[in-house]
Amino acid sequence: LTVWLVGAGPGDPELLTVRAAAVLARADVVVHDALVGSGVLDLAPARAERIDVGKRPGAPVPQGDINELLVELARRHDTVVRLKGGDPYVFGRGGEEALALLEANVAFEVIPGISAAFAAPLTAGVPVTHRGVSASVTVLTGHRRHGEPEPDWAALSMLIVHGGTVVVLMGVGQRAVIAAELMGHGVQAQTTVAITAHATTRRQHVMRCRLDQLAATAIETPAVITIGAVAALDLRPRRPPAG
Amino acid sequence: LTVWLVGAGPGDPELLTVRAAAVLARADVVVHDALVGSGVLDLAPARAERIDVGKRPGAPVPQGDINELLVELARRHDTVVRLKGGDPYVFGRGGEEALALLEANVAFEVIPGISAAFAAPLTAGVPVTHRGVSASVTVLTGHRRHGEPEPDWAALSMLIVHGGTVVVLMGVGQRAVIAAELMGHGVQAQTTVAITAHATTRRQHVMRCRLDQLAATAIETPAVITIGAVAALDLRPRRPPAG
Repeated sequence: LTVWLVGAGPGDPELLTVRAAAVLARADVVVHDALVGSGVLDLAPARAERIDVGKRPGAPVPQGDINELLVELARRHDTVVRLKGGDPYVFGRGGEEALALLEANVAFEVIPGISAAFAAPLTAGVPVTHRGVSASVTVLTGHRRHGEPEPDWAALSMLIVHGGTVVVLMGVGQRAVIAAELMGHGVQAQTTVAITAHATTRRQHVMRCRLDQLAATAIETPAVITIGAVAALDLRPRRPPAG
Repeated sequence: LTVWLVGAGPGDPELLTVRAAAVLARADVVVHDALVGSGVLDLAPARAERIDVGKRPGAPVPQGDINELLVELARRHDTVVRLKGGDPYVFGRGGEEALALLEANVAFEVIPGISAAFAAPLTAGVPVTHRGVSASVTVLTGHRRHGEPEPDWAALSMLIVHGGTVVVLMGVGQRAVIAAELMGHGVQAQTTVAITAHATTRRQHVMRCRLDQLAATAIETPAVITIGAVAALDLRPRRPPAG
């Protein structure tokens, strides 16, 4: 095995899986996104090379370049860890990297991670499904690339109207459009929205608003926006955790 | 902290989070579902009491009884671990338990887990989102309780027709209905379905079929059914993992 596509989880290093932490601890080189925090990167050996493909003056590294980099690194190292925020296959573009590795005949394995799509609502005290309230959860991203189609606002709105939960990743910049489209397709203006910024990190910050207040609500990024009846629940423990 | 609602992940003990494994290792009592395997339970101390609330002659323990049990155990033990397959808040009924603990003023914390909703497709080589193919993923359960409404088949079908992914947990018994409803609402009969039984365990078994073959396909339980264009991808590594 040479390349490991590893989900780093939502931020907190203790939310890596046991297997991910073990593989990271023996990495020769770690190729990571901007969203992967230093606490997670510290789990790699000090000697391991760290390559940040998320940050760059101007723009992130193009996906094709990352794919080529992984193939190239696999020729030189025993354990290449491609570390991705959340889960590699949930808006992580891991599928594109797996395809490139398959085509190059490079051995690889994929380790799932805790997606912020579920963990961010959880930290806001929101169960994405709840008996008698929500029987489905839909995850989408607010960040579309040029030429990609609009989300199916009519279908998403139908789901919310019937109690379903919609979770939007990377949606802060599009929050005015999201709110307008959903309300335009029948979602009530007073539907609760729960917002978790910097989920599971020390900077974690939870807010709630009505859907018609979302556009005017100031939100730090990265943030996860949870829309639907469950967002009105707040199951956060009242007593502070003892540590 | 007394009660921990802990996601046990999809089956493989190495897919617990680091934090979940640490809390389990110091549990005084573990209250677990039938879906939590022995490999995971072995992470608890030998001295810890294990209470299986998933199996019983006839039927599982009613949710209200589980809620009461957790409140009662919290009065007698320092570390009560409520261990749930997957993630506590993704079709895990963890929200109901959190509500009961809040109402009883019992301190608790929730630790997310890897949901089979994402991990089962991953083990089938399916990325639930993939650039240019799927920009959303919807998770629902085929197991509805008496009196609960039907899934919104029209909305789900619209999402699939536009490339979205639908993942059905506990849907084996309802697979004929699921296929008929989706095809009746415009999903093409030749849409690929990927099925993962016993995901991430030694008994793991992956199958693919067309939507119109789903009803006639024999499937072991538990299984996760992934429907949509991404299911036609198969990104499983061709070389066997070296271990």
